Amino acid sequence: MAAEETGKCSEAYPMKGGDGPSNYAKNSIYQKGVIDAAKELLNKAIAEKLDMETFSSANSFHIADLGCSVGPNTFLAVENILEAVLFKYQSRGPNCQIPEFQVFFNDHTSNDFNMLFNSLPQNRQYYVAGVPGSFYGRILPDASIHFFHSSFSLHWLSRVPKDVTDSNSPAWNKGRMHYLDSTDEVVRAYEAQYAEDMECFLHARAQETVHGGLMVLATAGYPADTPPSHSLANVTYQILGSCLIDMSRKGVVSEEEIDSFNVPIYYVCPRELEAAVERNGCFSIEIMEHLPTVMEPDTISKNSKLFASHMRAAMEGLFKQHFGEEILDELFDLFHKKVEEQHSAFESGKAGDIFIVLKRKAN
Amino acid sequence: MAAEETGKCSEAYPMKGGDGPSNYAKNSIYQKGVIDAAKELLNKAIAEKLDMETFSSANSFHIADLGCSVGPNTFLAVENILEAVLFKYQSRGPNCQIPEFQVFFNDHTSNDFNMLFNSLPQNRQYYVAGVPGSFYGRILPDASIHFFHSSFSLHWLSRVPKDVTDSNSPAWNKGRMHYLDSTDEVVRAYEAQYAEDMECFLHARAQETVHGGLMVLATAGYPADTPPSHSLANVTYQILGSCLIDMSRKGVVSEEEIDSFNVPIYYVCPRELEAAVERNGCFSIEIMEHLPTVMEPDTISKNSKLFASHMRAAMEGLFKQHFGEEILDELFDLFHKKVEEQHSAFESGKAGDIFIVLKRKAN
Repeated sequence: MAAEETGKCSEAYPMKGGDGPSNYAKNSIYQKGVIDAAKELLNKAIAEKLDMETFSSANSFHIADLGCSVGPNTFLAVENILEAVLFKYQSRGPNCQIPEFQVFFNDHTSNDFNMLFNSLPQNRQYYVAGVPGSFYGRILPDASIHFFHSSFSLHWLSRVPKDVTDSNSPAWNKGRMHYLDSTDEVVRAYEAQYAEDMECFLHARAQETVHGGLMVLATAGYPADTPPSHSLANVTYQILGSCLIDMSRKGVVSEEEIDSFNVPIYYVCPRELEAAVERNGCFSIEIMEHLPTVMEPDTISKNSKLFASHMRAAMEGLFKQHFGEEILDELFDLFHKKVEEQHSAFESGKAGDIFIVLKRKAN
Repeated sequence: MAAEETGKCSEAYPMKGGDGPSNYAKNSIYQKGVIDAAKELLNKAIAEKLDMETFSSANSFHIADLGCSVGPNTFLAVENILEAVLFKYQSRGPNCQIPEFQVFFNDHTSNDFNMLFNSLPQNRQYYVAGVPGSFYGRILPDASIHFFHSSFSLHWLSRVPKDVTDSNSPAWNKGRMHYLDSTDEVVRAYEAQYAEDMECFLHARAQETVHGGLMVLATAGYPADTPPSHSLANVTYQILGSCLIDMSRKGVVSEEEIDSFNVPIYYVCPRELEAAVERNGCFSIEIMEHLPTVMEPDTISKNSKLFASHMRAAMEGLFKQHFGEEILDELFDLFHKKVEEQHSAFESGKAGDIFIVLKRKAN
């Protein structure tokens, strides 16, 4: 038996719940953009890769969304999946038995499940279950899920790599909050953490997925032909980092606080993701593509306020835990101003988010 | 497809969440007593009535607790069930494959699922899912649950019977908050609501239970040989009602507010429960017994404070919704005093909670 605790421990930085103006539900436009961009790819994946024979004996079709947060994006993603699966069933002819659907909404235990449950779509055509716990460990029974989905959650590492906060380690990430523009040692520490996390993730999902079942993941990435330092993410973290340094000059945060702060987010390139799937061995890669760019560099500079709100909704849990709630307004106001001033910096930044469809091998 | 909304609508009076001194988790001693008292009966039910052949092909064994509230009693009940089921598997010999367990915790959408998830036992041997929605409608897929459990939830009607709040109806329950000491018309309105609710409950569960699966219910009741007006519940509601009348004399609540207030709780006798199960036709009654008395009348008068806290934790949602939060302290302080003064009234009161084990017929 493997309940959540027997999996790897994992840190949680929940998206902002509640219904205030800076909550995640109202500021996850970027994430919604990703879901919209992925819809066409999702339809294609289900149409071409979902093997209906595998599920024909099942009473009900089970979908799980990993890292669902509080909605509404998770509901939109589930609707897209359901529509495509239903279409596939219906296209088999009028005598085809349409199954019932059960959707498992997963996120960390600290996620605001009350808000999620209270905002469920009224006209939904599926049964709902909330599953608390880190997806880096086991969260569901063996072979219980036909379709896994995760949109923009798997780029969150289970933890900050240990060495990057250790002042005695060559991988100490002094003065920086991320690995993208850091030393080789820091980059390697992040790479190793990602590899370990993906091993846990794929190992757990391999057990939980029905043989022949699909797993569709959208995750932060960068194009194979671009050095990670040229990514949009790097520009963003450099600006956020410079805000913290400005604030340390004013005495709002200390140098030690900055030295010990690191963002546990990883940007993967297609080759590296492919290698992780192959090492695990239980899934075949059916589709792997870059997602269309959701926010072009010039869109960011023209919508700096929206971009700052998005960053705040997604990341304030992390900043709050380390620096305290009182710095948040100042930090993200400053970030907004700097994004506006430095819009040319975004123009060279490249995004390369990855959409991947895996199928559970019947080994 | 039947998601929650397609079932009957149902009102929710959530047990008190949060972690304050009067929350449900800290004041559900009575409910814990029921679970302790039911443990032996539960063991017997599983040992004698659970048909292992029915489940031998299942990957995992699915348990659902209906009306779970926020814990910890639901965890205790689940542990009891799991222990007894595991024992039964293990007694089949060392080669018997032990399944994985998945537990579906169900309660109204307004239940504090965040608190439930944050207080899950660390060493649990099961996967967790929270299922929001009224158990008077469908909440789970067809034939997906092997073992249903519900302890002291099914005595909550889905709503106050409509006629008892209608001043033009012969069933108008003027000046009283319950049916136990009321007119025949009011009693019949409550009976009809219970019959309708049980029809919905059993219809939904019949679809959701695996053929051969068990459903174990503990519910508020009264002994067959005692008129309902002699029940412990009646004494309790009469005292609570007299508190409200005292408060209306002081102008804290109005007479109209009292006239329109009714407690949607029903006390069933064994014969009536049996009739409901037979009308539904999908379950056989395997065991039906009265639960041992958890709180003897003299215990109540000696522990009036505890008893008042218990009543408050279980019922304040209902009072708050109708009269407003500001009356709660005064009401339950007064109730505590009156229970202390009128302890002799409890001595003639009889409890007769019912424990029933149903098996899904393989029709």
